[in-house]
Amino acid sequence: MRILVINSNTTDSVTDRIGAAARAVASPGTEIEAVSAPFGLPLIVTRADWLVAGPATLAALAARRGTYDAAVIACFGDPGLDAAKELVDVPVLGISEAAFHAACMLGRRFGVVSFTAALRPMFEECLAHHGLTARCAGFRMGPPFAGDPGRVAEERLDLLAALCAESAEQDGAEAIILAGGPLAGIAPLLQPRVAVPLLDGTQAAVRLAEAMAGLMPRSPRPRRARALTGFAEDVASLYGRA
Amino acid sequence: MRILVINSNTTDSVTDRIGAAARAVASPGTEIEAVSAPFGLPLIVTRADWLVAGPATLAALAARRGTYDAAVIACFGDPGLDAAKELVDVPVLGISEAAFHAACMLGRRFGVVSFTAALRPMFEECLAHHGLTARCAGFRMGPPFAGDPGRVAEERLDLLAALCAESAEQDGAEAIILAGGPLAGIAPLLQPRVAVPLLDGTQAAVRLAEAMAGLMPRSPRPRRARALTGFAEDVASLYGRA
Amino acid sequence: MRILVINSNTTDSVTDRIGAAARAVASPGTEIEAVSAPFGLPLIVTRADWLVAGPATLAALAARRGTYDAAVIACFGDPGLDAAKELVDVPVLGISEAAFHAACMLGRRFGVVSFTAALRPMFEECLAHHGLTARCAGFRMGPPFAGDPGRVAEERLDLLAALCAESAEQDGAEAIILAGGPLAGIAPLLQPRVAVPLLDGTQAAVRLAEAMAGLMPRSPRPRRARALTGFAEDVASLYGRA
Amino acid sequence: MRILVINSNTTDSVTDRIGAAARAVASPGTEIEAVSAPFGLPLIVTRADWLVAGPATLAALAARRGTYDAAVIACFGDPGLDAAKELVDVPVLGISEAAFHAACMLGRRFGVVSFTAALRPMFEECLAHHGLTARCAGFRMGPPFAGDPGRVAEERLDLLAALCAESAEQDGAEAIILAGGPLAGIAPLLQPRVAVPLLDGTQAAVRLAEAMAGLMPRSPRPRRARALTGFAEDVASLYGRA
Amino acid sequence: MRILVINSNTTDSVTDRIGAAARAVASPGTEIEAVSAPFGLPLIVTRADWLVAGPATLAALAARRGTYDAAVIACFGDPGLDAAKELVDVPVLGISEAAFHAACMLGRRFGVVSFTAALRPMFEECLAHHGLTARCAGFRMGPPFAGDPGRVAEERLDLLAALCAESAEQDGAEAIILAGGPLAGIAPLLQPRVAVPLLDGTQAAVRLAEAMAGLMPRSPRPRRARALTGFAEDVASLYGRA
Amino acid sequence: MRILVINSNTTDSVTDRIGAAARAVASPGTEIEAVSAPFGLPLIVTRADWLVAGPATLAALAARRGTYDAAVIACFGDPGLDAAKELVDVPVLGISEAAFHAACMLGRRFGVVSFTAALRPMFEECLAHHGLTARCAGFRMGPPFAGDPGRVAEERLDLLAALCAESAEQDGAEAIILAGGPLAGIAPLLQPRVAVPLLDGTQAAVRLAEAMAGLMPRSPRPRRARALTGFAEDVASLYGRA
Repeated sequence: MRILVINSNTTDSVTDRIGAAARAVASPGTEIEAVSAPFGLPLIVTRADWLVAGPATLAALAARRGTYDAAVIACFGDPGLDAAKELVDVPVLGISEAAFHAACMLGRRFGVVSFTAALRPMFEECLAHHGLTARCAGFRMGPPFAGDPGRVAEERLDLLAALCAESAEQDGAEAIILAGGPLAGIAPLLQPRVAVPLLDGTQAAVRLAEAMAGLMPRSPRPRRARALTGFAEDVASLYGRA
Repeated sequence: MRILVINSNTTDSVTDRIGAAARAVASPGTEIEAVSAPFGLPLIVTRADWLVAGPATLAALAARRGTYDAAVIACFGDPGLDAAKELVDVPVLGISEAAFHAACMLGRRFGVVSFTAALRPMFEECLAHHGLTARCAGFRMGPPFAGDPGRVAEERLDLLAALCAESAEQDGAEAIILAGGPLAGIAPLLQPRVAVPLLDGTQAAVRLAEAMAGLMPRSPRPRRARALTGFAEDVASLYGRA
Repeated sequence: MRILVINSNTTDSVTDRIGAAARAVASPGTEIEAVSAPFGLPLIVTRADWLVAGPATLAALAARRGTYDAAVIACFGDPGLDAAKELVDVPVLGISEAAFHAACMLGRRFGVVSFTAALRPMFEECLAHHGLTARCAGFRMGPPFAGDPGRVAEERLDLLAALCAESAEQDGAEAIILAGGPLAGIAPLLQPRVAVPLLDGTQAAVRLAEAMAGLMPRSPRPRRARALTGFAEDVASLYGRA
Repeated sequence: MRILVINSNTTDSVTDRIGAAARAVASPGTEIEAVSAPFGLPLIVTRADWLVAGPATLAALAARRGTYDAAVIACFGDPGLDAAKELVDVPVLGISEAAFHAACMLGRRFGVVSFTAALRPMFEECLAHHGLTARCAGFRMGPPFAGDPGRVAEERLDLLAALCAESAEQDGAEAIILAGGPLAGIAPLLQPRVAVPLLDGTQAAVRLAEAMAGLMPRSPRPRRARALTGFAEDVASLYGRA
Repeated sequence: MRILVINSNTTDSVTDRIGAAARAVASPGTEIEAVSAPFGLPLIVTRADWLVAGPATLAALAARRGTYDAAVIACFGDPGLDAAKELVDVPVLGISEAAFHAACMLGRRFGVVSFTAALRPMFEECLAHHGLTARCAGFRMGPPFAGDPGRVAEERLDLLAALCAESAEQDGAEAIILAGGPLAGIAPLLQPRVAVPLLDGTQAAVRLAEAMAGLMPRSPRPRRARALTGFAEDVASLYGRA
Repeated sequence: MRILVINSNTTDSVTDRIGAAARAVASPGTEIEAVSAPFGLPLIVTRADWLVAGPATLAALAARRGTYDAAVIACFGDPGLDAAKELVDVPVLGISEAAFHAACMLGRRFGVVSFTAALRPMFEECLAHHGLTARCAGFRMGPPFAGDPGRVAEERLDLLAALCAESAEQDGAEAIILAGGPLAGIAPLLQPRVAVPLLDGTQAAVRLAEAMAGLMPRSPRPRRARALTGFAEDVASLYGRA
């Protein structure tokens, strides 16, 4: 099975990190291809960023059409996800979507931990969009952060462990989602210090994408070709299928 | 006051219809400019359509930046709305958003009437996104429709009157939203046959945009310029401000 | 256009303050008449107060019937609002209702700031009654206050600025409602110190009332005359129309 | 124990019917006094009616203050209930409130049955106000009714039995509330034809009022006297206590 | 009237405490029988505990079948409650269910106070199961507790009084539930120090069970006998009735 | 990987059917063991049935402890699921839980189709327990059924196809769950006649259990041994671990 993992921003170093996390949990027969968005922004923060990252993500999906059995949108907030589910004939999962559903299957209440409170509104909206607000035991976020996102996971490791403990002990979380791109891949480092299972969105998405690929009907859904103007050829091609 | 009204699809005849409805309710000193999306799709139906209509709508907003005091996104579903609120320094309202809020101010419970049940899922999701599901008394929709959308309002006028009566009498609606582009402008024709106020989204949006333009602080919010690639110059310019 | 602004309590100094705030945002052609409730209580605090303020508000609406194009109930909690919408043939808006809807049109998440936590339960219930709880990013309220309500805004200005900052930075509020009568009119003083738009309920209500007056059908709804006993002549007259 | 049962409208024949239903379930030592509102309207239908019935209900509570251990507001919609709970030192229950809570204690899902769909919006709002919407399996209401409310229960008995059967079999109701004044007292006639328990609001309220009278602290809550103008002496007296 | 009060765990000293609290509020003609679960666990903490306490509670109900007019399951979380309502022909109430409903009838918003935050998740889930989350003003819980549950009420009395004050003053609670077995019976000690009514779940359940016993139809519901294997004879007998 | 699939009732023919459905989608390296509950009831219908099926399901899990990498509770309603997640150190999934989560990952709105309306209340409660009510587009159920459950799938195949079409076309379902034991395994027969993906709960659970087995930490959670009395040795052993 081949799974395309798309980093919805244009920063290749993040893509590498995501790819490594994905490969660490993929089943033996699964091949991971991790790619960056072909255009857009180096970092996705606002709702406007989320919107423009959508076509960029679709472009990445379109460029490799036919070469993968499932796809993962590896950007918390899941840009382009709903559109991709409509336009692509294999399962497409977002990493926040996957983290939420996997957490629900591990326990009744999950916590969300991240390094800065600035991400909380986005996470809350994403959680509400997926309809799972009532399953969330609460958010535990660190203070404002102005340093290098690429090093925050290591620099704030003790803080994160403390936040996870609060989530489990005070909020009653039975599983904890480590949310936000800069925390990708640190679950194994933290797990020994935390009493409940930790979830990495990319890893949850890869495992669940493997699962869904075996449940979805194989025959492509028929669609009427439509003319989309003003977007890259790849994006338009998703609309142009016979 | 100048209000830019953007039809998020590329069909100019619809734009004309929307412009006429807007001018019919604008205050004396208000000037309406109605424009089509500069690229994208001739009709917005699916979630994928909604996503790609977002940057097209942003492009229209960017192209005329500085020439309007408020803007209206005249496409049920409000593509690009959340991003526009972040990127533009004057009030931007969507027509579904405006219809929902105006209906709430007319009564405790509003109904939604449209000509075909196929639109119901999109309307329900839009309503949930705006957080007002609990204020809705119910949907009353006609059967599947395969004819000319440009003529459905007139062809199904009796059906619409009957659906409005059901909404008011059986669901307890105290105001009714006539939803969906093809019904733009028919409220005056139907109102004499309906016991509760009817709302046209474009018209609600124009009046509310006038209102909001007087409430929002005038000084532009400071933003850090960022480089957006892969989109039309106009869209990128919204990110590039000093 | 003439707008009747009713202070639902009997304290004329508050009425003056409300009237000034209303005039500051009214459109050029709009004339504001601000009146106190003709009877009732000098301050509305409890649910019982709210109930008895309802007929007092209706009496004020009835006494000037035919002289206004829209009305505003200028008392947080909106006493008599639902009844007024039924009994009066022009748009009637409450200031909390108006603040909530206007805030939603400014951003996805709004905060509520006030000078004392004692008001929080009332605000929460009012918000829930209007169905917009999910759009609220949170409440930020000051400690108990036992001084002169007429001076609290000025005395606690620094505290209010700090609460607004918390609302924007920690809760992610994109617009902030300054709630509670004693804060009427201080938004302009605070706005320079706050990064997101501030909303004054009375001002939001005046602008939205102007908007709604242009959307509601002009012909009065037919009603059957009914005999109401035990209330002032004015209130009974609302029931007695042919 | 003495329980005051207040019919919030001024129609004495309805008061008699309510009193009889109340006495049929009161415990041996309980004495029921049933009274009509001293002023107001002969029938409560709209939200405006509900508002003006509030002070009328308070007046009845005030007129007999000190003579009862608990009170019941016997009007579906519970006018004046929240205010009465604040102003009166013994338990005050509304009949819709009581019906909803009692139904919840009989099963997980309750149905609501009434003779005409015109009452559905009011019942839905009342249910939402009490926060129990999620426990309701659905409404089953008859067609519009223009006859004599005093005879509808008997005339539509077969219809009501059929609606109860639908509620139990199709909606999964495990208890059914017979809602609306005109159905008071018919539960015993219908019960033999229905497979699940039927609830009469007045009767539920009387039993629950007896229960609550034994749970509430006896010492009156201290209140500051306040001057209420424009209302009957009795109502003002509720505010004037030392 | 006879009421069977079942402690769902096997600890007789707790059963004695529960029985005393029940008798303190029972009506003159009511006889209380308090029994421990015949098997199971000495303490109910987790969801697994809750599950296995269900058949143990059913066994206690079955063993005395025919000797009581109503029953109370005296274990916060209400194990076996939904099943008991189906299998037993008299009213069966849980103490958390009773506390929630009674609190709602005392005021619009109730608080929940307990001695340790460790119980909060269970209480929240129980509250959500009963559908009354929106009526709860908030939880106020003490820090972790590792001492003797039998003495915590007395040891933490000052803390509990402080938590009750916070609940009333900051959260706006109008009634407060003292939750958790170890707090059974301490309401009278705390009430003089708290401005709003305190509720003990067992006592609420006894009063409400008396009330419901007068509302439920007397004739047993017909059931088809079914063969249940692997459980104690008493439990199976609930399935075996003709 | 070995997955234990437990039919929570005692009917072996159903167990065989479930086992076949499970094996049809299991990954190449996965071995399925399907077992019946060792005691309990031949069919699970009511909430009481659900309760007693819980310990029976735990007994099956305990009897084979150490021989499986993940487990599936194959009974709609998921009896014993929350307890099993606490007591067992490998992932345990319920088939309704799995169907709901998988459906969410296939589209924004899922429908639920089954052969008889009698199952609707149970499905609705199960859906609410998992917190996903808002993702459900609606239920489409057949009329009462009194025949042989083992043959209903085949007898009502045309009806089911029609219900699926209604779910997709009128409710906007983007994936459909075929709910209820008697429909296990018929998805492949119906899929060619339905435009959106069909989901079988057992099959979804097997795929998702494979996924979760790769995400959960391997080291068993430490638990304190506790003495459970009155249950089969196997069940008690789950409590007795060091």
